[in-house]
Amino acid sequence: MNDVATLHALRPLGLDALFRPRSVAVIGASRSRENIGGQIFHNIVSQEFRGPVYPINPHAIDVQSVPAYASLGDVKGDVDLAVIAVPRAHVMSAIEDCGRKGVSCAIVITAGFGEVGAEGRAAQDALRQRALALGVRIVGPNCLGVLNTDDSVHLHANFAQAWPLAGNISFCSQSGALGLAVLDFARDLGLGLRHFVSIGNKADVSTNDLLEYWEHDDGTNVILLYVESFGNPRRFLEIARRVSRKKPILALKSGRTEAGARAASSHTGALAGTDAAASALLAQAGVVRATTLEELFDAARLLSTQPAASGRGVGILTNAGGPAIIAADALAARGLVVPALAESTRKKLRAVLVPEASVANPVDMVAGAKMTDYDAALPSVLADPSIDAALVVLVPTKAASPEELAPTLARAQSSGKPIAACVLGECDARARAAIEDARVPLYAFPESAAAAFAIAAEYAKLRARPEEVEMEIASAPSPRTSFVGDRWLDPQEVASLLASFAIPVAASEVVRSPGDAGHAAARIGFPVALKLVSSTITHKTDVGGVALNLATADEVRDAYASLERRIEAQGRRAEMEGALVQRMAARGIELFVGMTRDPQFGPLVAFGVGGTYVELFGDVVFRVAPLTVTDADEMIDGIRARKLLDGFRGAPAADRLAIRNVLLAIGRLAVEAPEIAEIDVNPLVAFAPEHGVLAVDARVRVTSTRKS
Amino acid sequence: MNDVATLHALRPLGLDALFRPRSVAVIGASRSRENIGGQIFHNIVSQEFRGPVYPINPHAIDVQSVPAYASLGDVKGDVDLAVIAVPRAHVMSAIEDCGRKGVSCAIVITAGFGEVGAEGRAAQDALRQRALALGVRIVGPNCLGVLNTDDSVHLHANFAQAWPLAGNISFCSQSGALGLAVLDFARDLGLGLRHFVSIGNKADVSTNDLLEYWEHDDGTNVILLYVESFGNPRRFLEIARRVSRKKPILALKSGRTEAGARAASSHTGALAGTDAAASALLAQAGVVRATTLEELFDAARLLSTQPAASGRGVGILTNAGGPAIIAADALAARGLVVPALAESTRKKLRAVLVPEASVANPVDMVAGAKMTDYDAALPSVLADPSIDAALVVLVPTKAASPEELAPTLARAQSSGKPIAACVLGECDARARAAIEDARVPLYAFPESAAAAFAIAAEYAKLRARPEEVEMEIASAPSPRTSFVGDRWLDPQEVASLLASFAIPVAASEVVRSPGDAGHAAARIGFPVALKLVSSTITHKTDVGGVALNLATADEVRDAYASLERRIEAQGRRAEMEGALVQRMAARGIELFVGMTRDPQFGPLVAFGVGGTYVELFGDVVFRVAPLTVTDADEMIDGIRARKLLDGFRGAPAADRLAIRNVLLAIGRLAVEAPEIAEIDVNPLVAFAPEHGVLAVDARVRVTSTRKS
Repeated sequence: MNDVATLHALRPLGLDALFRPRSVAVIGASRSRENIGGQIFHNIVSQEFRGPVYPINPHAIDVQSVPAYASLGDVKGDVDLAVIAVPRAHVMSAIEDCGRKGVSCAIVITAGFGEVGAEGRAAQDALRQRALALGVRIVGPNCLGVLNTDDSVHLHANFAQAWPLAGNISFCSQSGALGLAVLDFARDLGLGLRHFVSIGNKADVSTNDLLEYWEHDDGTNVILLYVESFGNPRRFLEIARRVSRKKPILALKSGRTEAGARAASSHTGALAGTDAAASALLAQAGVVRATTLEELFDAARLLSTQPAASGRGVGILTNAGGPAIIAADALAARGLVVPALAESTRKKLRAVLVPEASVANPVDMVAGAKMTDYDAALPSVLADPSIDAALVVLVPTKAASPEELAPTLARAQSSGKPIAACVLGECDARARAAIEDARVPLYAFPESAAAAFAIAAEYAKLRARPEEVEMEIASAPSPRTSFVGDRWLDPQEVASLLASFAIPVAASEVVRSPGDAGHAAARIGFPVALKLVSSTITHKTDVGGVALNLATADEVRDAYASLERRIEAQGRRAEMEGALVQRMAARGIELFVGMTRDPQFGPLVAFGVGGTYVELFGDVVFRVAPLTVTDADEMIDGIRARKLLDGFRGAPAADRLAIRNVLLAIGRLAVEAPEIAEIDVNPLVAFAPEHGVLAVDARVRVTSTRKS
Repeated sequence: MNDVATLHALRPLGLDALFRPRSVAVIGASRSRENIGGQIFHNIVSQEFRGPVYPINPHAIDVQSVPAYASLGDVKGDVDLAVIAVPRAHVMSAIEDCGRKGVSCAIVITAGFGEVGAEGRAAQDALRQRALALGVRIVGPNCLGVLNTDDSVHLHANFAQAWPLAGNISFCSQSGALGLAVLDFARDLGLGLRHFVSIGNKADVSTNDLLEYWEHDDGTNVILLYVESFGNPRRFLEIARRVSRKKPILALKSGRTEAGARAASSHTGALAGTDAAASALLAQAGVVRATTLEELFDAARLLSTQPAASGRGVGILTNAGGPAIIAADALAARGLVVPALAESTRKKLRAVLVPEASVANPVDMVAGAKMTDYDAALPSVLADPSIDAALVVLVPTKAASPEELAPTLARAQSSGKPIAACVLGECDARARAAIEDARVPLYAFPESAAAAFAIAAEYAKLRARPEEVEMEIASAPSPRTSFVGDRWLDPQEVASLLASFAIPVAASEVVRSPGDAGHAAARIGFPVALKLVSSTITHKTDVGGVALNLATADEVRDAYASLERRIEAQGRRAEMEGALVQRMAARGIELFVGMTRDPQFGPLVAFGVGGTYVELFGDVVFRVAPLTVTDADEMIDGIRARKLLDGFRGAPAADRLAIRNVLLAIGRLAVEAPEIAEIDVNPLVAFAPEHGVLAVDARVRVTSTRKS
């Protein structure tokens, strides 16, 4: 190994160069801070980056008093990281310079690429390909830059003016403006940041790359994502699923993309939409989705400073009754529990508190409570076996001021249980800073603390999920060779397709006359149902196309004839291709399983209660296929009507294993048969445990145009 | 009229003395500010009450440098309002003094009354009665006091230390501590307060009294309530319903009282609970219920400063894409609309903005936008016909800083449409104050602004409700004389009770043998249903107690015999009192109407979809009886499954007028027949419009013990 090779071996590569650069060049560093390159250069220097920063500017002798370099090549030492803030026309040559100089990573601030139409997209593609060839990783283009509070780096390579509190939260934002805003008031929010990356157009470095980096970054304990779109949902799922088992990932996902050309007539399609897909993906990935920005930051502060709770019991300690009730309501509304304290705990509390104090939970020490009362009571509350976390609520009084709170909170942390504080009233900057220094998150409203605890509990639940297990469905060879064109499969095709994926289907025959109907029914066995067959009339009940409980061949013949007359009367006789004679299923629980394809996320499997209720209540759970066993189980447990599956009002419970198998099979089918655009199994009738399920009605649409 | 009478005629009485006192005495004014009486006296004096404040203290020559009076009688001039902060044992004699002196209103700060058990309650009752006899209105006891920023009064008669911004929001808090907290950070929150009243134990002056006062108080534009319990729900309903048509009333209702001895087996009971009753009452009263404290204050700031919107269309104007998407998501999630702007508006915007700007809605002027761009664009957005309100989102940049925002917002207010601002990032105190001075509410997060707009829209909807109309149900004389004891009525009693309130009931007969069953069915007409009659077995389907669609007398006889055998096999033969033979109803939509009595709120009527879904999805709407036509219509429109009533998937729509009549009748029945504890009509089958409804199954429980 020669010297140059040694040198290269020591140089940080790729994302290491982004997060641990030893030297930085700002290409386009300007004398004026009005200019973005000037502002970034100023930020890097004034925030004291722990290495040399080279201003590259062919038109200046010095930049903000630092001797300038006409080109990157003029720099004598190594450059690990470059920030590119030159006009769009010069970005490519700057990347060429980076390649020549051996720069491992370039942050391209410059805009005017993929976000501005076809020409910009072409320029961006060219840039990515060239950088890839040169071995230069790119962050951006069209981004705000990065920020790194790691004391050995201290890099302020972006154009925000504020420098946040250092901490263990790393944040990836797809919106530069949002990132700017967050950096701007991270200090007010008490958010301790480690890395911040504005990923812009994601030409190269993506959220996925950052997740993989932060997975092994010891200084990062909590990962925040602001996401508008997923570049590669499948890779995100794979990576985030792994990383979220090590560190909490919280996401705010916003924005809606076009749902694409989805058949308007489909149940699943109408209910799904891309946002449902995003929610499914995040849930499968173990990522907690916050509803609001405020909730995202509130939860991050709790997760980044406090240990994980081992359960949902929260103890409330306060000097104010009303706020304690509000806190208890908010916790309960979020699925947490405010359990009564053990008698032994109450006894300890009664020994130290005034007689008027309430020692149940909330523990209300009443308005005269001093900070010494908080000090005496908090350890007892935390020691209670039913308490997994504590919320300390203080209304400032003459007896107890927020200034005194920090030491009490600091001492109580030896319990190993998470604590949050809420000062409802004025809390000055010094008191606030002391509480932050004690590393206890402080909230202005009890409901905010409740939201943070709820998100932490959700993360704990996700983390405790069983390891993902591969499915074990045996699929028989399927008769799919005939699936061409854009059409609904006929009932016989549907039946054999489902059967080939081990989904039980009710016995049936397609017939085309009253007489045939009677004969078919006799072969199948009574009672039977008779259902219209039509590839154009999708909702058969709407046209009176279903007759149930037909007990004799005569009834079946009559039903066929009357069906024909009804369709005729509606002027749609040409659309009637015949009728399906089907064995009536035994009574069971009617469910719904569906599949559609999202243009961005791929196949989505849907599960809910069958019949019209799926639409009325929107009680549907989605997951992105392929499904793991955990996915399928979470779908089954995720519907609001799940009580129905447990044996509701004396009815038998449902065969969950059989339902799970159908979900897994539909997921597998979706992956293996890209020509299938859409599946609706409604109803799937579930019988008692060990009695299986039966697909009673199903529709399958195939397409030759979209295969994803 | 003699002089004394003239004088008395000019003196403010009752709540006028509370809110417009010309003179105040502090009974128990202490030299020390450590003492509550001392702190309140200090607050009144230092906040410059616009009249004399008399410190009453028999042990002091002066109080905080003001000459003291040994007793109230020693004061020469009139005293309109007294603040009583003496030990509990001396409160009664202080009230006697007030009576003698002609004081019209006393604020009793002292605690130790109704909140501390039976003895305290007795003392409080005695106090109330004596004060009533003396003509002295009482606020409290056990309260924090009042605060009044009216410039002609300027009364700081409470022990909070902060003095809030003056404004047009009046606030009544049932929790002193919460009130304290709110006063403490009202200034941070930007809440402009007019009156604040801590009502403590509500021995005399109640929320209802305050609502009636604020109804006619020109300085009060928005009323906030923090409510833990309702003293007189019926009076609250009557008053708030009237007042909320004039001014918005926003409430945070917290806490849960014991649901009382409600039969655990009842559907309605299990679903209702006192919180549902409180929600129903607030909705009927036109009061908007906030979910969190933060939402309460955020909405109050919008409603107190901005005009009402005439629709749900919100225009978003911003310099930042991500936050705009977050804002649009949040608005849509809250039921507001972010409509595309008219082409004429877009044209105007394109003429003034840079080409990269997006002029749809959100209007994203991109990061380089200057405040002159906001100034140019905002009036055009507001002028768009589909826009009813505007949300201005600013991420501070070098080009546009929050300091410049206030004049732009001020100018735009000439549109007469409501505006809110969100500065996402650092916004210093001066910029904040300037925006507050422009009377535009400022939010840190776009979601907070969305929540405020949503509450304002909800208020607008409540206010636009038709005037309450009395019901016009004719009720026949009811055969209720036999309703004694605690029991379930038998089917015949149920049928005649419902029929006497004009509720259509399916024809039926109770029978006690297979043979009788066959004969009864022949009289009624086929097909019939056969249903178990038992006063102890309440859920008949759970024991297999229902047979449907019996088409011949033989089938009916067989069904009776087999029902007997089934009940026998379950060892419950003694509980079978016979069976009901009932004409099968035609197909229709199965609904549920119920009534229970809440110990605090009285009769509650419930409405939802019938069958087991009412429980599975909790899709039930409650209202407190008696119902107005508006109440009934809002119940029908309030269920999530309401699409079912509009003709879902080709099924006929439901006869809404007939459903409304049943709801009104059940409400009237609840009021007229206090011996009826509980009603469950499930299913009530609704047919197509003009085809009415039919009560197919109903249970009615009577009780002799509780008549409310």
